[in-house]
Amino acid sequence: MKTEMNIGLLGLGVVATGVVEMLAIQKHKIEKQTGVTLNLSKVLVLDKAEKQALAAEHGFELVTELKEITEDPTIDIVIELIGRISPAKDYILAALRHKKHVVTANKDLIAQHGEELIQVAKDHHVGFYYEASVAGGIPILRSLATSYMADHITSIQGIVNGTTNYMLTKMVEEKMDYATALAKAQALGFAESDPTNDVDGIDAAYKMIILGAFAFGKSLTINDLSIEGIRRLDLADIFSAQSLGYEVKLVGEVKQTSAGISASVGPVLLPKEHPLATVKNENNGVYIESRGIGKSMLYGPGAGALPTATSVLADLIEIAKQSQGAQLYPPFNELKEELPLAPKETIVNHYYLSVHLAETMASQDKVNAYLDDQKQAIAFSKIEETDRLILLLKTVTEEQLQEQLSFVAQFGEVQSVLRIMGEIDEN
Amino acid sequence: MKTEMNIGLLGLGVVATGVVEMLAIQKHKIEKQTGVTLNLSKVLVLDKAEKQALAAEHGFELVTELKEITEDPTIDIVIELIGRISPAKDYILAALRHKKHVVTANKDLIAQHGEELIQVAKDHHVGFYYEASVAGGIPILRSLATSYMADHITSIQGIVNGTTNYMLTKMVEEKMDYATALAKAQALGFAESDPTNDVDGIDAAYKMIILGAFAFGKSLTINDLSIEGIRRLDLADIFSAQSLGYEVKLVGEVKQTSAGISASVGPVLLPKEHPLATVKNENNGVYIESRGIGKSMLYGPGAGALPTATSVLADLIEIAKQSQGAQLYPPFNELKEELPLAPKETIVNHYYLSVHLAETMASQDKVNAYLDDQKQAIAFSKIEETDRLILLLKTVTEEQLQEQLSFVAQFGEVQSVLRIMGEIDEN
Ligand SMILES: NC(=O)c1ccc[n+]([C@@H]2O[C@H](COP(=O)([O-])OP(=O)(O)OC[C@H]3O[C@@H](n4cnc5c(N)ncnc54)[C@H](OP(=O)(O)O)[C@@H]3O)[C@@H](O)[C@H]2O)c1
Ligand SMILES: NC(=O)c1ccc[n+]([C@@H]2O[C@H](COP(=O)([O-])OP(=O)(O)OC[C@H]3O[C@@H](n4cnc5c(N)ncnc54)[C@H](OP(=O)(O)O)[C@@H]3O)[C@@H](O)[C@H]2O)c1
Repeated sequence: MKTEMNIGLLGLGVVATGVVEMLAIQKHKIEKQTGVTLNLSKVLVLDKAEKQALAAEHGFELVTELKEITEDPTIDIVIELIGRISPAKDYILAALRHKKHVVTANKDLIAQHGEELIQVAKDHHVGFYYEASVAGGIPILRSLATSYMADHITSIQGIVNGTTNYMLTKMVEEKMDYATALAKAQALGFAESDPTNDVDGIDAAYKMIILGAFAFGKSLTINDLSIEGIRRLDLADIFSAQSLGYEVKLVGEVKQTSAGISASVGPVLLPKEHPLATVKNENNGVYIESRGIGKSMLYGPGAGALPTATSVLADLIEIAKQSQGAQLYPPFNELKEELPLAPKETIVNHYYLSVHLAETMASQDKVNAYLDDQKQAIAFSKIEETDRLILLLKTVTEEQLQEQLSFVAQFGEVQSVLRIMGEIDEN
Repeated sequence: MKTEMNIGLLGLGVVATGVVEMLAIQKHKIEKQTGVTLNLSKVLVLDKAEKQALAAEHGFELVTELKEITEDPTIDIVIELIGRISPAKDYILAALRHKKHVVTANKDLIAQHGEELIQVAKDHHVGFYYEASVAGGIPILRSLATSYMADHITSIQGIVNGTTNYMLTKMVEEKMDYATALAKAQALGFAESDPTNDVDGIDAAYKMIILGAFAFGKSLTINDLSIEGIRRLDLADIFSAQSLGYEVKLVGEVKQTSAGISASVGPVLLPKEHPLATVKNENNGVYIESRGIGKSMLYGPGAGALPTATSVLADLIEIAKQSQGAQLYPPFNELKEELPLAPKETIVNHYYLSVHLAETMASQDKVNAYLDDQKQAIAFSKIEETDRLILLLKTVTEEQLQEQLSFVAQFGEVQSVLRIMGEIDEN
């Protein structure tokens, strides 16, 4: 039972600097609550010169060689905040193999190589926690691993990418176009200089993979998800959706159907009463449906130095507590179920379609014939600005959707197909 | 290390029946996750006859004497779901003294006698958990005790009484009056036949006392809170508030100011963008402001058999896990701080006032003189239906509020004084 634990930090960027600050603020409380003093002793950087002032202020040593941390027997815990796969993965493996507990915020890495790392941590009897990897400051993973363990989750939906949610909020509230919204998100530091992972839904997909493991015990890989980003999203559709009572959000979902697990990320229409519809700006929300609790949501900042650093601290506290207790350092997520992926043809959804109508008399007749003929599938239709047909399709499979799209192609050009999450109000 | 733990349940009402059902659904998952099989072996009831069918279906024994449970050496865990103080308190004490772990949903008891019970549990090295006592299915206490332990909370605000939130939602959305809304809540089983504790804010106050202990480590007693219920709430004020961009909700708050802790429960005006403003019907929400995470919220059903039972199960899982690990059964909440109560005179608030104007020419002059004279304190004023003056007062102490009320008394009768939570938009 140690009363002091020394920390080696890898990287000193946005989140790492937040960790330095939060550790200073919370040191006394953590000591009192866990009986352990957490000392930040060494920080790995690429260039010492830049970070001298911060190091001096907080009394830690800057190093440029990984082994000065992993091979230092006085270091108990390594926090990885470099990001990406390489060299982060090798660094974490080295730390685990030297029997250091590891905390990370690296969702790319956990989503792609989590199982391997978790196994190595288990083999070396050390803790490996990553609360900060999903939804920044929201304590979602630990809640899933403890409180929701008592429940049977049937679906988990999340606004888990702050950048795109910020952009969509600006596009709606300030009628900003996509490029301007992206530039603004970059200026504010939400979006990286290469925003591909954010706007294409990849970042959200990584987070949904991690959430799927915690909620269902299912290991998903990126190819198991249908993924769409927000690049092709049209402002006109956002406003049409709003006039029908929906908000457009980039939502990830993993759900269990009788046919198996299905997982997706994409721009969807959410009814305005859906709790996720109220999540604005760079905030995140994770909405859970379950047999016991029913409908619940956790809401908060999805990114940012201090929120994300707080999640890192929560993991440190878990390690400190374990060190005073059973010293079992159990895997963060112990749920594992053999669940099949739901075959594509079993998945039904509601859809929003917008169609640019060909402007001939003949096409008008075709539109009317189509609306009449397919009224089973069409929950709602209206024509905007004389040449834009808006359709809401109800409970259709992917195959049925394609069939509808081919009907529609006879009198117009389909501009957008967006999924509707939740019920369609047919009035 | 036991691989089986036997449970004695006290009471077989709404929540207890939910526990029976959820245990049956989740038994296998709990076994797999914790290595412990939880058996419900005995249930204490007042009248066996009524409950025979349920007992037969689930294979537990009905008993009518407490000691058949507390003095049964095969029973490891006692779940108390009778409610109120007596005999629940004595029953729990007896169970703890017989070295049984105890789980309860009894907020009245925890808020009033929690410290005593926690100490007895500690003395007997058994677990004592009560997640279900606050906000039904929302996993708020365990989140505060683990994840938020890494943070420094500055305020916690909650819609923590489902009955009154349901009533207020109906009053607003269906223009229902107070009595009809109450009758409807009772018909749906949200409100008890004696709804005093709900509508007078006492139930919410008990929950805020528990939240205050988890968020700040401060033990509050009911007299430390300023408490107001919703009995005197006027529909006209709710609609005036809406037209000014606010929702009226019964909100409990515990916050830390430089002068100390202040705690209250009352109907307040929440700006529509406030996350709690979107919490409808019998749902609850707990909104937290903190230095690290910033602004976050947990949202979900505040009552009901299955949601509340799920929180009871989460506590059972904690006990099962501890039994396989360190067997320390730490107190649910380990935070304890010596914090003063903020003196009344240091507390400043914004207020909404509605005033019935006396209808004389002279009084009109007085109104104008007052509005002109006090414009420092008045953020907004308007006259509705010729004789209703609505005022928003900005940043006033209790003493300053009384002073304003005495000014106003010169030309009208004050009908309502409601606190505004959050900023006033002066346009
Ligand atoms: N930012 C957020 O709000 C947020 C939220 C949740 C999770 N995360 C995750 O947290 C992690 C860190 O993100 P961040 O935003 O803090 O990134 P960041 O600001 O770019 O910080 C990364 C730091 O690592 C340094 N670095 C790169 N390679 C290194 C190496 N080989 N050795 C030592 N240092 C190296 C970088 O230095 P140079 O700048 O000199 O290259 C940079 O200072 C990522 O996994 C990210 O996905 C971030
Ligand atoms: N209902 C909710 O949604 C909810 C949510 C959160 C927390 N809680 C808390 O959960 C607890 C239980 O609430 P509940 O709604 O389940 O109440 P309930 O339906 O009234 O159940 C209480 C049960 O205890 C029985 N009982 C009373 N005295 C007893 C005794 N001496 N021995 C054995 N049984 C006795 C009652 O029997 P009789 O009916 O025959 O009197 C009744 O069946 C309370 O502390 C409550 O505050 C409830």
